[in-house]
Amino acid sequence: MRINYKLKRLFIRQTLSLNEEIKIEGAQASYLVHVLRMKEGAEILLFNGQDGEWLAKLIIVKKKFVVVKLIHQERLQTTHSNLIYCFAPLKHARLDYMVQKAVEMGASILQPVITHHTQVTRINMARMEANVIEASEQCGILSLPECVSALSLAELLARWDETQSLFFCDEEHKSPNPLPSFKKRNVTTPGVLIGPEGGFSEEERSFLKKHPFVVPMSLGPRILRADTAAVAALALLNATVGDWSMD
Amino acid sequence: MRINYKLKRLFIRQTLSLNEEIKIEGAQASYLVHVLRMKEGAEILLFNGQDGEWLAKLIIVKKKFVVVKLIHQERLQTTHSNLIYCFAPLKHARLDYMVQKAVEMGASILQPVITHHTQVTRINMARMEANVIEASEQCGILSLPECVSALSLAELLARWDETQSLFFCDEEHKSPNPLPSFKKRNVTTPGVLIGPEGGFSEEERSFLKKHPFVVPMSLGPRILRADTAAVAALALLNATVGDWSMD
Repeated sequence: MRINYKLKRLFIRQTLSLNEEIKIEGAQASYLVHVLRMKEGAEILLFNGQDGEWLAKLIIVKKKFVVVKLIHQERLQTTHSNLIYCFAPLKHARLDYMVQKAVEMGASILQPVITHHTQVTRINMARMEANVIEASEQCGILSLPECVSALSLAELLARWDETQSLFFCDEEHKSPNPLPSFKKRNVTTPGVLIGPEGGFSEEERSFLKKHPFVVPMSLGPRILRADTAAVAALALLNATVGDWSMD
Repeated sequence: MRINYKLKRLFIRQTLSLNEEIKIEGAQASYLVHVLRMKEGAEILLFNGQDGEWLAKLIIVKKKFVVVKLIHQERLQTTHSNLIYCFAPLKHARLDYMVQKAVEMGASILQPVITHHTQVTRINMARMEANVIEASEQCGILSLPECVSALSLAELLARWDETQSLFFCDEEHKSPNPLPSFKKRNVTTPGVLIGPEGGFSEEERSFLKKHPFVVPMSLGPRILRADTAAVAALALLNATVGDWSMD
């Protein structure tokens, strides 16, 4: 079923079923009432990551809360994509942005990785999850990507499922063309690894290349910021072996 | 020749040649002296869009200006890419971001296009050019992309070189896979057209499709923000027919 572009979508941590009445409070209620100025009778979409997407009608609108009634199921629950997005965390707003983009681009697991040149070591997981929810509401997915705890690069590689390819964006890779990297790879649960601003160290690059499941790829002749590289790499992965490639 | 990742690069509107001494004033001097705290003897890279890239040594450092001497040419001048980036302008910070990303992704012409759902009609060209310069300094290119005046969608299509493909990101396109759109196209000077938040109107979509040079393409099953779509579309274009595809 198609995504409805017109209605506001909200993620909610409650069971969703026909005719159920649900009280929405806090920031979500405030957003509906004070920002969007919604009245009784207005419609929104709700999803909880499990019960698909539901059309809901506002039946009570107060200053501090709203009650909605579930009218019908718009879309059935879909399963997660299987795309592990491994990234050296950036600072503050740029991390927010990077997380939002990864969600839009179909990541199912967001895996922070601490590398030699990573500038951030403590990650605000609550903020990361809030960004995941907001991006999920906006981009139309029904399963929330999972934010997992940071690993060192060595831990990531030690725990990696060796049957699955991990594509890593290597600024020093000889061929500028990334597309051949995606050919004949095992990619039921592929990963993309994006380094920090400043790239991987020499030591890290040779350590990465010792692992047969690691596939180096280039992203052209220009220096890309880490968040640009993330979107570019995920676009290529999606278009070659991911969920954009299925006709 | 490779990009030197370590040195600060500055764009400067002066002729560059061996042993020349150049006075740097204003914001650029302030940045070198007060932000980077550079001293006499420090090295930077200079480019002007015409004379390649030069290694320069700071020989005088004052509070309000710096004098550098050109030591040798690091890279020869390269020619522009031929990629026309047509985009419905976004507001403020998101336009800055979109412009920066387009430069990193190799656009040679930045063409704002006013569509039905475009929220911005007046564009601050000086701000757009400042963003182009900053992104060019950062991403290592030697030719500055050109910012041109906004056109309506009808004007853009009327003036388009009909021998060149214009790829347009069509949310309603049936196949989710964008890669086939790039096959067997005339792409010596291709264009990418990114619509506004809210997409193109029905009328615009059918108007676009009447033009044989317009190639609709999808960017998968999720709703992408306009700036995400821009990077994704440019990544695919670069990897298939642009400057990432050359081995």
